[in-house]
Amino acid sequence: MTDVKPTIESVPGFKVAGVHCGLKDSDALDFALIYSDRPCVAAGVFTTNQVKAAPVLVDQERLQKNPTSIRAVAINTKCANACTGQQGIDNALQTARWVSERLGCSEDEVLVMSTGVIGTQLPMDKIRRGVDLAVDALGDNNWEDAARAIMTTDTRPKMASTTLSTLEGKTSQVAGIAKGAGMIAPNMATLLGLIVTDAGITREKLYESLTSAVDFTFNSIVVDGDMSTNDTILMLANGASGTVFEEGFYSGWLCHRLAKDIVQDAEGATKLIRINVYGTSDHKSAKQIANAIATSPLVKTAFYGGDANWGRIIAAVGRSGISVEPEQMALWLKPGDGSSPSEGLLLFLDGMPEPYDEMRASEIMKLENITISLVCGSGEGQATVLTCDLSHDYVSINGHYRT
Amino acid sequence: MTDVKPTIESVPGFKVAGVHCGLKDSDALDFALIYSDRPCVAAGVFTTNQVKAAPVLVDQERLQKNPTSIRAVAINTKCANACTGQQGIDNALQTARWVSERLGCSEDEVLVMSTGVIGTQLPMDKIRRGVDLAVDALGDNNWEDAARAIMTTDTRPKMASTTLSTLEGKTSQVAGIAKGAGMIAPNMATLLGLIVTDAGITREKLYESLTSAVDFTFNSIVVDGDMSTNDTILMLANGASGTVFEEGFYSGWLCHRLAKDIVQDAEGATKLIRINVYGTSDHKSAKQIANAIATSPLVKTAFYGGDANWGRIIAAVGRSGISVEPEQMALWLKPGDGSSPSEGLLLFLDGMPEPYDEMRASEIMKLENITISLVCGSGEGQATVLTCDLSHDYVSINGHYRT
Repeated sequence: MTDVKPTIESVPGFKVAGVHCGLKDSDALDFALIYSDRPCVAAGVFTTNQVKAAPVLVDQERLQKNPTSIRAVAINTKCANACTGQQGIDNALQTARWVSERLGCSEDEVLVMSTGVIGTQLPMDKIRRGVDLAVDALGDNNWEDAARAIMTTDTRPKMASTTLSTLEGKTSQVAGIAKGAGMIAPNMATLLGLIVTDAGITREKLYESLTSAVDFTFNSIVVDGDMSTNDTILMLANGASGTVFEEGFYSGWLCHRLAKDIVQDAEGATKLIRINVYGTSDHKSAKQIANAIATSPLVKTAFYGGDANWGRIIAAVGRSGISVEPEQMALWLKPGDGSSPSEGLLLFLDGMPEPYDEMRASEIMKLENITISLVCGSGEGQATVLTCDLSHDYVSINGHYRT
Repeated sequence: MTDVKPTIESVPGFKVAGVHCGLKDSDALDFALIYSDRPCVAAGVFTTNQVKAAPVLVDQERLQKNPTSIRAVAINTKCANACTGQQGIDNALQTARWVSERLGCSEDEVLVMSTGVIGTQLPMDKIRRGVDLAVDALGDNNWEDAARAIMTTDTRPKMASTTLSTLEGKTSQVAGIAKGAGMIAPNMATLLGLIVTDAGITREKLYESLTSAVDFTFNSIVVDGDMSTNDTILMLANGASGTVFEEGFYSGWLCHRLAKDIVQDAEGATKLIRINVYGTSDHKSAKQIANAIATSPLVKTAFYGGDANWGRIIAAVGRSGISVEPEQMALWLKPGDGSSPSEGLLLFLDGMPEPYDEMRASEIMKLENITISLVCGSGEGQATVLTCDLSHDYVSINGHYRT
């Protein structure tokens, strides 16, 4: 396992800024800009929601036409620029144009991301101010500002960095920021993430590095099962280190760290729950079962209340759409990340409840870090999904999100 | 529209009881028995969850083998008798056997239903007491006791009755009780319901009457999207009125009343929300879209908070799995049951937000009865789904359900 740090010092060739332009009522940071002093190879994964925000549509087109010379990414909070029609597209394009004018690059070289309330137009006077302030503030070491500036209901910035090595021992830096909090569902690159590296890499290998990591990181976390209109993960490689990764590189550990941070800081979350599913016919089936458990409001509220109501887990498995036989199933509750199997409690075996120590179950359910392990049969398929509980605070936060 | 009453006086030939046998800690009623003095034609619809409770498996088999001479139904709360293996089956059969011994009928003529916590065995000493007490308490007018005895987190009993008429003006009675509260998902006969009539009808017509009503009543309500292991709706016809319904009868109004009661009394619900979807290619697509909206935690919390955050509705539509074009969509928010279209607020049209009066939207969102109308295109498909909001109380109730 590569050592991944929760901070970012600097990544050669990249300058960043996070500023306050008035989108948030307080003086909190609300506009971020990431700039590379040379063209970047770029890759992106986007929401599969049919209702896509304007910045998603703009970025998808630009990455298609222009995947090897991206220079900047501008990100705003508070307004998702989704369900905003042609005016929304025009506003996204104008944002990129302003960035390109100030940075002296082509507007096709600028990507945009937005997050926040759906169905309102971007306040373009504030966006204009954000562009100007951010360009002026660009620096090597402002990653935490940028990570803060993309937060919505996140309570803390999400950053990670690590070092990549070729087989010959040459290195490059890779770093990423992300925001999460709510509207996080299976089968999508969740909410916003931006990963940069000074590695040299082809467009194809970069895309492969991103997509291979996403399936079991950003696409294996669940907060509430709602799928956003804006989810985007971008990856930029500027080659400034001079190290070329001909076979690509592995970004899974970095993505995992960011994805886990998102679940731990999800709206109202008090517990991180790891769901391991084994013994299905294939990975996809295991993931579908894990997602059924992870999206169940009854399972999530039971974890919040610390009640080892495991019958709800089995009921969720039964409606997952994957064929299962209760008589072939086994379910364990384990403390922590579940890596000490001997500490686990066997709750259900061969279609029958197992006698188990309710006191010990209660102790485990009180932890902030809990693992469920479910065996469904003798197949080779397995999957792990991270999720959180459903708390009073989730309801409070989302009952009044716009107000 | 037939006049449906929220009470049940008596249905000729049926005797009922609701008693306390110790399943609930308080002295609340917890065991119900329904008995017919002559054999009944019977029909049932059951959960589609692959993990089926023991009473579901027993009833399915008995209705298959013996659909025209059912004499009694025994129902207990607090224990779902699900995930209980062969012992669970044996306990369900023993319950029916005790009932048959006391009533002097064959054990194959007795059905059983259970609701409550999954994964514990029935306490058979209490069940034995319940059978004895209930047989002793059987009477013509104890329908409210029976309705109370099947409640779990329901706050009030759910009953309805009405009169059926043949074209010639001959009549019969039909009456039903139900319980709901949580673990209620689309595409299932939700939780427990029992409908009885003194009409004469064939097995085929009775089944048709039940299934045709279920699709847009019990299968068109959503509380939390979780699908129970125990859901069962049974319908019994004993022919005591002497009126034979050769063409069957329509039970939709009665079922609608019970289904609506379930949503209004759902766990923690403060609002009844009617979701009308129009303009899809067919009914199934419209229902799938309505269900995506109805199961969205973000939509449900926004309703709880009284926030007209309509972008979440559109985002839910976009991930419903049904092909939609935002540019063809229109969304209205309406007070009450939405039958006065002129009072509605147009929020979204042709892919763009409509300017609307936020004060008026807030007024509507404060009501206990709200309608969303969504047009998706120009198709003929439409569907209505009833749902409720997701409140702090839902989290409280389900965080500590077993304790």
